[in-house]
Amino acid sequence: MSLLEKISSPSDLRRLDTEQLPQLCKEIREYLVQCCAVNPGHLGSSLGAVEIAVAVHYVYNTPQDKLIWDVGHQAYAHKLLTGRREAFVYNRKLGGLSGFPNRYESKYDAFGTGHSSTSISAALGFSVAASLRGTGEKCVAVIGDGAMTGGLAFEGLNNAGATDADLLVILNDNGISIDKNSGALSNHLLKITTSQTYNRIKKNIWDITGATALRRMIQRFVKNLRHAFIPTPSGPLFTALGFRYFGPVDGNDVLKLVSALQRLKEMGGPRLLHVVTKKGKGYMAAEADQVTWHAPGLFDPLTGKRIGHDSSVSRYQDVFGETLLELARADERIVGVTPAMASGCGMNLLMKEIPSRCFDVGIAEGHAVTFSAGLAAAGMLPFCNIYSSFAQRAYDNIVHDVVLQGLKVVLCFDRSGLVGEDGATHHGVLDIPSLRSLPGLTICSPLNEVELRNMMYSATLPSWGPVVIRYPRGYGEGLQWRNLPMEEIPYGKAHLISEGRSVAILSLGPLGNRAEEAALKFEADYGCRPLHYNMRFVSPVDTDALKHAAEAADVFVTIEDGNVEGGLFGAVSEYVAANAMDVRVIPVGVKGEFIPQGTQKELYHICGSDIEGIYAVLQKNFKK
Amino acid sequence: MSLLEKISSPSDLRRLDTEQLPQLCKEIREYLVQCCAVNPGHLGSSLGAVEIAVAVHYVYNTPQDKLIWDVGHQAYAHKLLTGRREAFVYNRKLGGLSGFPNRYESKYDAFGTGHSSTSISAALGFSVAASLRGTGEKCVAVIGDGAMTGGLAFEGLNNAGATDADLLVILNDNGISIDKNSGALSNHLLKITTSQTYNRIKKNIWDITGATALRRMIQRFVKNLRHAFIPTPSGPLFTALGFRYFGPVDGNDVLKLVSALQRLKEMGGPRLLHVVTKKGKGYMAAEADQVTWHAPGLFDPLTGKRIGHDSSVSRYQDVFGETLLELARADERIVGVTPAMASGCGMNLLMKEIPSRCFDVGIAEGHAVTFSAGLAAAGMLPFCNIYSSFAQRAYDNIVHDVVLQGLKVVLCFDRSGLVGEDGATHHGVLDIPSLRSLPGLTICSPLNEVELRNMMYSATLPSWGPVVIRYPRGYGEGLQWRNLPMEEIPYGKAHLISEGRSVAILSLGPLGNRAEEAALKFEADYGCRPLHYNMRFVSPVDTDALKHAAEAADVFVTIEDGNVEGGLFGAVSEYVAANAMDVRVIPVGVKGEFIPQGTQKELYHICGSDIEGIYAVLQKNFKK
Repeated sequence: MSLLEKISSPSDLRRLDTEQLPQLCKEIREYLVQCCAVNPGHLGSSLGAVEIAVAVHYVYNTPQDKLIWDVGHQAYAHKLLTGRREAFVYNRKLGGLSGFPNRYESKYDAFGTGHSSTSISAALGFSVAASLRGTGEKCVAVIGDGAMTGGLAFEGLNNAGATDADLLVILNDNGISIDKNSGALSNHLLKITTSQTYNRIKKNIWDITGATALRRMIQRFVKNLRHAFIPTPSGPLFTALGFRYFGPVDGNDVLKLVSALQRLKEMGGPRLLHVVTKKGKGYMAAEADQVTWHAPGLFDPLTGKRIGHDSSVSRYQDVFGETLLELARADERIVGVTPAMASGCGMNLLMKEIPSRCFDVGIAEGHAVTFSAGLAAAGMLPFCNIYSSFAQRAYDNIVHDVVLQGLKVVLCFDRSGLVGEDGATHHGVLDIPSLRSLPGLTICSPLNEVELRNMMYSATLPSWGPVVIRYPRGYGEGLQWRNLPMEEIPYGKAHLISEGRSVAILSLGPLGNRAEEAALKFEADYGCRPLHYNMRFVSPVDTDALKHAAEAADVFVTIEDGNVEGGLFGAVSEYVAANAMDVRVIPVGVKGEFIPQGTQKELYHICGSDIEGIYAVLQKNFKK
Repeated sequence: MSLLEKISSPSDLRRLDTEQLPQLCKEIREYLVQCCAVNPGHLGSSLGAVEIAVAVHYVYNTPQDKLIWDVGHQAYAHKLLTGRREAFVYNRKLGGLSGFPNRYESKYDAFGTGHSSTSISAALGFSVAASLRGTGEKCVAVIGDGAMTGGLAFEGLNNAGATDADLLVILNDNGISIDKNSGALSNHLLKITTSQTYNRIKKNIWDITGATALRRMIQRFVKNLRHAFIPTPSGPLFTALGFRYFGPVDGNDVLKLVSALQRLKEMGGPRLLHVVTKKGKGYMAAEADQVTWHAPGLFDPLTGKRIGHDSSVSRYQDVFGETLLELARADERIVGVTPAMASGCGMNLLMKEIPSRCFDVGIAEGHAVTFSAGLAAAGMLPFCNIYSSFAQRAYDNIVHDVVLQGLKVVLCFDRSGLVGEDGATHHGVLDIPSLRSLPGLTICSPLNEVELRNMMYSATLPSWGPVVIRYPRGYGEGLQWRNLPMEEIPYGKAHLISEGRSVAILSLGPLGNRAEEAALKFEADYGCRPLHYNMRFVSPVDTDALKHAAEAADVFVTIEDGNVEGGLFGAVSEYVAANAMDVRVIPVGVKGEFIPQGTQKELYHICGSDIEGIYAVLQKNFKK
């Protein structure tokens, strides 16, 4: 029986001898690689953070003590150690474990995450509460150097650093987010970890601790000195913000980590331990190509060979990336802005060919949008690409800096709608409800690859103002789109896919293809068919199309990939209600619930947004 | 003719001798005090920033060079110098000047502001664009130490500091936002400005420059040395973020400022000039009480006596502050959290009596909410008060950290709806549309003072989950509310104010009082009256009330203080459309436009949300 198999909870872990921990870490790694090979997940960052998970649970008394993972996709080892080893084979699956810490899933998940940079603020809340209630709980936040560039992390540091809160922030510095990190903080950390001081300390102290007797001696020495673990001058940023800075420490050396945490645990006050880890640690392929192995998909654990999606179908990300590059080649005003998702969204093509006009600003969605607004105010034409759920972090920037000023920024919301395995935190279902009432903001969504391309082109035309183009994660409809001439999409106009009667389908985005398949099947089965508009725009909504639809049908079925309240369903309902149209409006989409993880296909099925669900709506409502 | 009267644009300013600038600053102050005495505005911060405005326009070639004010309420002197001296008597008035920089108002307002912490991101956009286009424009951002605590400012610094962008950030350090600043950054700046280094530099260099000949000598010396103006070790935070740090300089000494800017102008790269100013500078009363004189209202310029609103009517802020204190006295779980608006929202009462359970986290709305979520996860019951338009900056924190986790945070949105003189950036009109589709989040708004009190109480009951209570800026209905027993508001239930027929008024919030006045007037005039529900809740919306209303009326008039699309109008329309009710829904509220500045009364009139407007809707739609 392996060590790992003996651990059902952190209290089992804490019964191990310290010397057994390296072996445990090794077993965890092997298990993670095995599991992720057949059930894809965020392997790279979780491999890097194995020792952090082990050391914190070993030293701290979780779940009374609170461990808060920032972002949380690096917390797989934490899941294994907290009673979820067997369940982990269902990681990110429908009905299985969330890919992130989740309060509904385990008492060891003190705070749910998914979006970055929240951990310090939340941990401060726990720490303040512990102090007010006198419970004496310890609080630890683990945050990556990528997440540390988010403004929220700074707000948390700034607030915590002015208090005497008992709070340990572990900065997990692996020098990479999903793409390589950018920004001054990244340079600052690099400077620290390459400095003389670091290397001297490492040599003089840490390396000595290789010999057990010496290590114990030093530990005793340090313990007696209490606060002898003195902040070095190498962490001025954090020191300036009121934190005591410790490190850097090799975060993939579990013995060193345990030793450091044991001393830091009882210290009190806001303090930061800077640990340096390697993303993908311990798995050769993942160490060698950290960007690819952030979330590698299926692979052969022995050879490290990835098992690709054998498809000639393009992803929307391919369409975005190539089209942006084409547009940028032809128009010098066009620039690309991405908050740390250059390869995820496809902007890496522009980055490669015209780096001077492509900006990866780090995990900083608010800044990405306001920076884009500044560029637009200065006469450039920025394409700012943000995943829809992350764009929630730039909401005020969109409102206050872009739309209120009428500045032409083309906001491309990748991963809008249901994203699949990343689950509730990552579904991009709020963009339409939150932005639809903004005067002057156009919101549109393409039916397929060709329309995405044409919408991107049309958005550059002078007649279009600030615009959101939303499209989903993943594969398109398999259309040939490359090298097609770009065509203008008539502004604000829906496209009539088919005349029909009784029921009018009003679809937005690629789900319209499923709707059309359902309509065709319905026609095959019953010999009559509904009318179908591909709405293309939800703001403004094409009221001519609605009037025309009302002539043929007395039931409207709105189909959208997102929350229906305030969405396309809301827009259509408002028009119908304001004009007292004799029409019933039936929403298809996400209705009043948070949707969990699962495949996109499963989730669309849950929402009734797949062919089957839409067909059922037609069957029920069509007057045959 | 005064110097000020001769200046129609910055080019006039640049014709003055440097020695005339102190006199000009004096005249600007006098004019600002005179104007603001009779037409209230943000006097304190604008008095403090007079020299910055004069010096930047004197040294830089605006509007080709770009000057971006953070927040912008300190930019009154800038307005006077850029052709708006005479128009300034209409500052913040309907049809007059915006109280903030505004791109639609002047070419000298390079970037519109109102919300804080945007300037660095925007200025970086201008700087990058200037570089790409080869136009050679210089970019200056002026940001206060309060705004610097917003995470967006950090994101901007972090990104800019890793570039070679030609960008000057002037940190206007007056040690205060609206209330006294809190947070580690504030401590850091205080440490710098009280340090030996500062005082030595000040003594050795700046004080010497009092003698003109010597000053010239030093200027020559420094100019020859080019970069001899060496970053001191006193700005480690900014240095760590890749900025060259200069200062601190007395920012109320225009000659020193001009001198510093002349040297910094041509330097290149991201650099930060730390200037220390006094809020309220030059006007005794304002210097003495900086919190009150942030926006003092009407006053006698000679005596400094403020002309109060002589009213026995409470403001909603009074109700919130006193009720929160009462609730907190009775329930130890209750804590207050405010992002720098303790006195504005009334939380100063709790702060004074139970400081250990009241947290002013600085201008950091996102952190305020995530910190509150952490507190709630640890068993506390946080009341987090944010102005509605600023809550846009915490949108993802509300979604991801509070609602998705079902954590009970009582979000009190002060200044929801039309706020009056602060104008478009400050109207709180998006909270309902943006939040209504979130499962499990209750959104309600009180009719009056008593209902606010009871909603706050009810929100503490176990049966209520996470909740938004929105209420407007300013005075209530004059009801007696103090010492009334707190009563539970039936969850999710509308309150029938009056039966009626033909038209059903469905109102949310205090505008319901105007609606009822309109209904009574209508009844007096025509002998029949509409039905009227005070909806109280917009999420969930009371569908029983809607069904009942539909029995009596075939026109619904929704009345809300905010954007109608996706708002209460949206909620009602969706129900009507989904159920094919034979009802027309007419929205009263903000419809598809940004509303400018003006008195609240004027703005409600523009939107047709006042008695007159609602009466007109009744007249038109009632079947008498």
